[in-house]
Formats: sequence, structure tokens, C-alpha cells
Amino acid sequence: MQTQVQTLKGFRDFLPKEKRIREFVKHSIVKTFEEFGFEPIETPTLEYASLLLGKYGDEADKLVYSFKDKGDREIALRYDQTVPTTRVLAQYQNELPKFFRRYQIQSVFRADKPQKGRYREFTQCDCDIFGTSSPVADAELLAVYAQVYKNLGITSLKILINDRETLFNNFKEFTTESLSVFSILQSIDKLDKLPKEVVLKELQDKGLSADNAQAVLDRMANAEMSESLKTIIDNAVALGADRNTFVFTPNLVRGLDYYTGMIFEGKIEASAGGSVGGGGRYDNLVYDLSGLKTAAAGFGIGFDRTVEAMEELGLIPDTIVEGTKVLVSLFGNEDLKNKSLNLAKILRQNGIKTEVYPELEKLGKQFKLADQKKIPFVVVIGENEDKENKILLKEMLSGEQKLMSLVELLTVLKIS
Amino acid sequence: MQTQVQTLKGFRDFLPKEKRIREFVKHSIVKTFEEFGFEPIETPTLEYASLLLGKYGDEADKLVYSFKDKGDREIALRYDQTVPTTRVLAQYQNELPKFFRRYQIQSVFRADKPQKGRYREFTQCDCDIFGTSSPVADAELLAVYAQVYKNLGITSLKILINDRETLFNNFKEFTTESLSVFSILQSIDKLDKLPKEVVLKELQDKGLSADNAQAVLDRMANAEMSESLKTIIDNAVALGADRNTFVFTPNLVRGLDYYTGMIFEGKIEASAGGSVGGGGRYDNLVYDLSGLKTAAAGFGIGFDRTVEAMEELGLIPDTIVEGTKVLVSLFGNEDLKNKSLNLAKILRQNGIKTEVYPELEKLGKQFKLADQKKIPFVVVIGENEDKENKILLKEMLSGEQKLMSLVELLTVLKIS
Repeated sequence: MQTQVQTLKGFRDFLPKEKRIREFVKHSIVKTFEEFGFEPIETPTLEYASLLLGKYGDEADKLVYSFKDKGDREIALRYDQTVPTTRVLAQYQNELPKFFRRYQIQSVFRADKPQKGRYREFTQCDCDIFGTSSPVADAELLAVYAQVYKNLGITSLKILINDRETLFNNFKEFTTESLSVFSILQSIDKLDKLPKEVVLKELQDKGLSADNAQAVLDRMANAEMSESLKTIIDNAVALGADRNTFVFTPNLVRGLDYYTGMIFEGKIEASAGGSVGGGGRYDNLVYDLSGLKTAAAGFGIGFDRTVEAMEELGLIPDTIVEGTKVLVSLFGNEDLKNKSLNLAKILRQNGIKTEVYPELEKLGKQFKLADQKKIPFVVVIGENEDKENKILLKEMLSGEQKLMSLVELLTVLKIS
Repeated sequence: MQTQVQTLKGFRDFLPKEKRIREFVKHSIVKTFEEFGFEPIETPTLEYASLLLGKYGDEADKLVYSFKDKGDREIALRYDQTVPTTRVLAQYQNELPKFFRRYQIQSVFRADKPQKGRYREFTQCDCDIFGTSSPVADAELLAVYAQVYKNLGITSLKILINDRETLFNNFKEFTTESLSVFSILQSIDKLDKLPKEVVLKELQDKGLSADNAQAVLDRMANAEMSESLKTIIDNAVALGADRNTFVFTPNLVRGLDYYTGMIFEGKIEASAGGSVGGGGRYDNLVYDLSGLKTAAAGFGIGFDRTVEAMEELGLIPDTIVEGTKVLVSLFGNEDLKNKSLNLAKILRQNGIKTEVYPELEKLGKQFKLADQKKIPFVVVIGENEDKENKILLKEMLSGEQKLMSLVELLTVLKIS
């Protein structure tokens, strides 16, 4: 078999700079999640296929990576984090606390058509609260979602919000035996992108009379926030979210048919990327999946789009991308080499990120490596330095060189 | 299809306590890697199967999770981190610096028989230095490996060390057309676990004369460290490793046939778990895999066994496992509820991990949740507290309750 020296389409490598940026964003998100009292869990990459299939709808089922393992079990790769968590809820129901609040940050896999910003392996950041249908839980989720973006320095987040229950109640009367509420909602959802007339026609194609199709649109245009949605937003504001972050969006439906109450979607206005995830209340899903009666609400953050927005908006501090600080050069004989190795030891003991040039080569070559790797400092212990019990420090950017004692060196490197 | 409410054999969930312990250990390892100037990379979970198959030996090939995706590509799950990294080296050869030093911490997948301490998805922590065969690079790897365990507080680490080149040179003369050096080494490797006589017999079964089989064992018994191995250890000691960590082990072979020089294996003496990974020099592998001529050396840390050893040795600080610090109770009317939500906002703004009880229930029930979740403090704003503009703080362990101002509350919670 010939070796393929390339990544599969839709999959990515992260080289050091990009990986550091991702870790920076992830740590900020984790810190916010923890401040809101969410606790981390992790589930395996592989699950029984029967756990995942039939849970996300027919279209989604096609996107699940599933296969037979060598023990002839049908297994599948994590498609989202909600379904595996419902398994956790059922499997550990005697261990988990009431009002379990968990976060989970892992890769998910979807055999989707790769395109700009859409990958086959990507990271999701989920928060969910189980065991209560209180509006305070919904508000906590909205508040932590808003706070994540505030803490990342993204000020232009809008949260489009709606209420699945109100949607259902508004349009139930238009359903027929062959036309479900969900089908009506799917058409309404398109009002964002398509002209009214096209949506009207689609509703008629689905079996509604012209009058009823118009009535659906009228009802939409005059929709008002339900009292329960108002309470949720009031509570979220009390918990720290800015009121003007929320945009009541009566035609917001969201794809997944398991939502039962509040639904929302985050958009970064200043970024072209648009939607950065969302969520809502799904009080029946845990029961449907696992037989455990547990109310639930939660959201998923689109991690990759959030990272892209941060980069686009210039919100990644330079210091994050900084790697190694000092290159210890190797010079002259075995004795000098040992002194240089010892210096590396001391620098590292002082928490300074240090690389040792591995070979005895001309100093010019060693400086060149520092240049290439953007390491800001090089230290040299040569014969002269050693005689004076000093160390030569070269600052690569200015080219400046200075002889100094070890104590001076540590001071300079720690403050710069 | 019936839903399976269980994890696949050999796969694990990590609930909050265990997940926090793993993150603690991981952060310590990352900090050490970074201090030694290693840079993080990440590769996809899935690769072309042709990249992975035929690289680890016939036995290992059977353990690779591979399957056909919907585009009829043969794909496979990450089996180790070395082979994907050699792909990265070839694919990005114009971007990567000389003496590329990378670390990588991800899951790998092996369809092995699950047993105690052996999982089908487990975490590896790898460090490698590419582009040099200098003994300083070998020494850097030994030094960082030793420092990882020092920083974790594990003092009983031993590094069994040997030299593949010396092994080959010592036993080359015993090879025949049907008996490879590697086959002889495989028998030698068993001297740890089997009586001499059994190994002697095995060597004879493989085609050696009784005299030659005995000569192999004699040569082993009298083996001495090569000069190059001595230099490597000297350099590692200069870089900070303790000399008595190293144990010259002439019958150490290590399974993978791609090693070409120094090889080593870490053992935690105080822990039953034994081996916690290892590595060595493999100067031909990158060329064999990718056609790129690059010397290389590196190691993998057995993350799961290291975590288990930390737990066994009582090295996980209690503070790491600590989750949420305060439960904000909900009390009385809407106005009081809003004040409580506001208090949660302020606590979180001060970096205090805070959960809000989501429902209006009897205080006793709310205290009970704090007990169950081991949250050390509960705050209450009831009518009386509100009148006095105070907050009631209950410390769950002592049961003590105290009225205080917001400023006092923040002080108490920040220092406790």
C-alpha cells in the first residue's frame, strides 16, 4: 500500500502557533464555564452505533461515521456530545448529583461535504443543566454563553432567541394529517434567506390553502415574546448578561426537532463567520434516549468559528503565540558544553522556556536557528565568558550583546 | 435498533472528579514540556489507512481500527502519534524549523484485548526532536522525561536504558539466514520474566547451537555500556536528571523494530503499575515513512498509568478536585430572587465558582444539594437579610451561619 502523505479532506493538523491559539481560547472558555459552576466530563470517541443512529434525524444519520469493529460490533464515532451525555446520565444515575451541570469539550465527527469553515472533525464546547425545567436554568445557560464571549473580548455577540412552545402553539391549528408543525416551522425558518412569496408558495405546496399560508405569515409578523421567555431573559440579565445582547427572533426554529422550550443561536455581528452555535431546552430527549425522566437544557459553542472570529477581530494577544524564550548555544570543548547544559537546567528551573542547540556548530548557525524559530534570546558560554564566570546574552531583535552574571541573566530574562 | 446504555468494552467515561485529576496531571506535563522548549501540535483522529498500516508490524496492524468511509476511502483511527507526526514533517517540510521539537497529547486507539490498565482508547504524551542525531538531543529527551516525573512529585522513577546499536553489534555474528538479530533480541528481552533455561531453549529452537545460545547469554551477562550511551547519560545529568535514575539494562530491547540507537523505558518503582512509557532514537523511520531524510528521537509517556500511579501514591492534591465553591440559594419573591441572581453575578465576576439553585424550594432542600455536591458554602438573601442589606453565609462543614456585608462575603470566600 502506498503511503498517503496528506490529511484526509475535511481534517486538519494544528501546528504550534495555531495550536497555542486554540489552547488560549479553550482555557478562557473553561474558566468561564467553571465560574458558572459547570463541571467537566469526557466520553469516549467510539460508542455503540445503536446509541447514536436514529437520534439526529435521517439526514444526520448519513453523516455518522459508523463501522463494524473486529468483534463484529456496530460502532460509531462521536457525532455530538448531547447523546453520549444522556447515556452518562442513565449509566451513572446513582452517582450524579441533582441538577447536574456539566461541560464537555471534545472533537465530534461528521461525514459532511467539507467546505470553508466546515470540517469533518471539529471541536464542540457544550454546557447543559439536567434535572430542572426552571427558567433560572435557561437563564444561567444564556448568561454563561454571553459571558464566554465577553471574557474572550468579543463585544458584538447577539443572541437570537425564540420559544419552541410558542411556535408550536401558534401554528398547531394549521397542521393537517399530512402536514406537521415541524414542516411548517421549517418553511418559516427560511424567511431569513428567501422572499416572502417563495415561502408562501412552499407552504401552499405543502398543502395549505392560500389563506392559511398567509395567516401563518401574519401570525409570524405579529408574534410577541411569551411571558416565559421574558422571565428567562430578565433572569439572564440579573445574572450579568446585557439586555441588548438578546434579539427576539420569531422565525428562529433551529434544526433539531428535540427542542421543547427556549431556543437560541449566537451570532458575532462583527465577524463574517456568523453563527457560533446555540442551544435550547429539550425536556423529552433524555427520556427518549435513555428512559430516564430528566428535564434538560444546554448549548454547544462552535469552537472553530469562535477561534476564527477571534483571529479576524485581532483578539489573540501576541504573548500567547510566544514559544521558547532562550536558545542555549553549544560551544567549544566538553567542559564548556557541560556548563551550557547546566545553564539550561537553571533557566528551566526558573520557569524560562529553554531550548538547547543540539550540535557543536559555528555560532552564526546557532544564531540563525534562533532567528528562524523566533526565539528572542541566545546565551553563549565560550572560553572568555567562562574565564570571567560570565554569560553572553544576545538579544536577537536588536542584535545587542552583553556579558553578565547568572543572577543578572535570570533577572533580565524573567522581566522581558 | 435498541439503544445501548453502556460504554464499549475498553472505553471509558471520565466524570468530573476523574476528569479534573487528569487535567491537573496533563497541565503539569505540558508545563514541563514547554520549559524544555517543545512546541504543541495536533493531528486528526482519522488518517488514510495506508499511512498507518504496515508501519507497526503485522501484530500491530491487526489492532488498528480501520474501515471504509462513505467515499470508499480506507481510513483508520490514530494508532500512535509518531507516524502522523512523520506525515506532518513531510507535508510541512518548508514551514517547520530545523531541530523541530514537538509535543503531542492526544488519544490513540488500539483494538487490543481490554484488561486492567489496558484500554482501547488511551492518552499518549509524546516528545520528539527531529533533524539531529546528536547525543545532546537524546540527553534532552531523557532530561525532560525525568523532569516530568520530578515535577509530578514522583521520586521513585527509574529509567532503564540500553543502546540498540550495541545490541545489534553484539549479536550480529549469531544471525543466520533464517534467524534475524531482531529474533535473537526478542528472546533476550524475555530474560526479565523467564528462567535462563527457557530462553536458552528458545534460542536453540530458533536454530542456534547449544554453544552459541550459551554464548549469546554470556555476552549479555558481560555487556558494558557503550561510550555513546555514557555520553548521553552524562549530558542528561548536566541537564538536570539525577544520575541514579538511570539503570543500564543490557537485555532491554523494546518491541518496536524501528529504534536505531539509545532506547529507554520508565518504571515507577513505588507503583505496582510498572512501565510508564519510554522511547529512543529512530533515525531511519521518518525516511521509511515519508521519504524525508531526518534523524529523530523521542518518547511517549503512558498517561493513564502515570495518573493511576499519582492516585496510588497520594500525589493528587485535594484542592484540584474541588469544584464549585458557593451555592446561591433562591428565596421568597421575584425581587429577592433577582437579588440572589445579582449576587451570583458578582461572585462570578470575582472569579468565585458559583452555582445557582434553579428552583424556589425550601432552604433545607437547597442546603442538601450543597451537601450532595460537596459545595462548601451556601449564601441566602431572604427578607430579613435584604432589610439589613446583608447576606447570610452558611459554611456547610461546620454548619456555622453568619450575616455579613457583600464586601465581607467576598473577603471570606476569596481567602477560604
